[in-house]
Amino acid sequence: MRSPAQNAQLALLLELSGTPKPGNVDRRHEYNDLRFEHFMAGAVGSTPGLLLAQQGAAVGRAFERGVVGMAEQRGGNTQFGALLLLVPLVQAASADSETALTPEPIEEIVHATTVEDACDFYRAFEHVDVGVDDPPPELTALDVRRGARAASTLRERGLTLFDVMELSADVDGVAREWTEAFPRSFRAADWIEAGDGPISDRAADAYLRLLASEPDTFVVKRHDHATAEEVVERAQAALDGTITADDLATEFIRREINPGTTADITAAALFLALEQGVSV
Amino acid sequence: MRSPAQNAQLALLLELSGTPKPGNVDRRHEYNDLRFEHFMAGAVGSTPGLLLAQQGAAVGRAFERGVVGMAEQRGGNTQFGALLLLVPLVQAASADSETALTPEPIEEIVHATTVEDACDFYRAFEHVDVGVDDPPPELTALDVRRGARAASTLRERGLTLFDVMELSADVDGVAREWTEAFPRSFRAADWIEAGDGPISDRAADAYLRLLASEPDTFVVKRHDHATAEEVVERAQAALDGTITADDLATEFIRREINPGTTADITAAALFLALEQGVSV
Repeated sequence: MRSPAQNAQLALLLELSGTPKPGNVDRRHEYNDLRFEHFMAGAVGSTPGLLLAQQGAAVGRAFERGVVGMAEQRGGNTQFGALLLLVPLVQAASADSETALTPEPIEEIVHATTVEDACDFYRAFEHVDVGVDDPPPELTALDVRRGARAASTLRERGLTLFDVMELSADVDGVAREWTEAFPRSFRAADWIEAGDGPISDRAADAYLRLLASEPDTFVVKRHDHATAEEVVERAQAALDGTITADDLATEFIRREINPGTTADITAAALFLALEQGVSV
Repeated sequence: MRSPAQNAQLALLLELSGTPKPGNVDRRHEYNDLRFEHFMAGAVGSTPGLLLAQQGAAVGRAFERGVVGMAEQRGGNTQFGALLLLVPLVQAASADSETALTPEPIEEIVHATTVEDACDFYRAFEHVDVGVDDPPPELTALDVRRGARAASTLRERGLTLFDVMELSADVDGVAREWTEAFPRSFRAADWIEAGDGPISDRAADAYLRLLASEPDTFVVKRHDHATAEEVVERAQAALDGTITADDLATEFIRREINPGTTADITAAALFLALEQGVSV
């Protein structure tokens, strides 16, 4: 039986193999400088971090170690957000492998994170260029791009990793999963579980449904709110069949509209589905 | 830095992502019952075996453990031959991580295999349905499909895993790599290293060159010599540009001509190339 760390790795790979996932890299779509193989190398490289999470290491440390390995390829940031979701999920799944994974133990894990976890999280930004916006003025000292230099501020203010996630939950869909006990990840896992056909097709469907359900915060950061709203509408149109998801994929790649947060949540959903026993 | 076990896993995934690889499953081609995602799950599942090889466990034991994990998906045999090549390579790379991998230490490892390694190799056939032919009459007691039941014969005759490989080197291209110190794997690794462009494109090129260089023994087993010779000629035509590799891929999939041995050797070559420092 695959371990939680293996299921997490497989989730990263299955997220990648589902196609079409409009705007994101998949088997049939890639960017010139961000290619399919970069994601494969990212998934393989992140293994030591996922194994640490499985062994019960601190969330921040496991995450930072995962990011170091993930970054060992030339595509840049491939799975930063997905790892941030997967690390607490792997830890929860490993702590109790007998019962099905529910939001409660995950909530406990994220609430129990410490200031040191927050420092490790910041340190992870030193290994890879993550697309982020300028923080509001009162949070300049906590700009993630400060990396390890933010540690003194984190310690002074006693901010845990959970606190840090709360600070950005309004503008970051991954942080919001953390603070709300992974509602979209669980919902999409149910869709994947209830579907039929190959699991990567079901993952692509789940991605499209997530995309149509709310604005992708990575698109908001890289483009703007209007573009993110347009993405929601177009994804809904693809679900309704008035446009094809394939055409949407081609167009979004051309416009470099890359709904990364939705892909991250799809990976988390795949992990939960695999842990729930969905077979490949 | 990726460990040898991680490079082996990445080699399995990159072999998969190179396209087109006429007749084999890749990003754009799959069979209804043998799909892209089965290979991904196979690569993830084989990790514990690759880790055993990295830790210096016996070749047979590491291989069998890899196959058990590989088989945990619904596609059946995805990477049996590739793992048989990768296990001694991973062991050699792990024993001496300072110097570049050469044929000599690998030769030592395969020559040092024992009767117990042979027994574990036979046991591996119990976990997955591997396409093999009937053995010649004098070797019926050593039919791999006997699995663990062949152990007494192996012990009586004192046959090591290397001996077993010698017995089938004439009819099996993976066994021949073992007995001849991996010549085609090293040659294709050089092609991959010397090439440019994305590593998965270079892997697809190496696959085609291997395919054009000698008959694929898996095609001989599943079809016949004439078909395997035809595959060589058509692969050469694709290299010459008189047909496209894409057309060949579509045709071979339709005819279920699946040159698995060539794919296995491509995975071994990718591992060697990654160990030689080719970056992704």
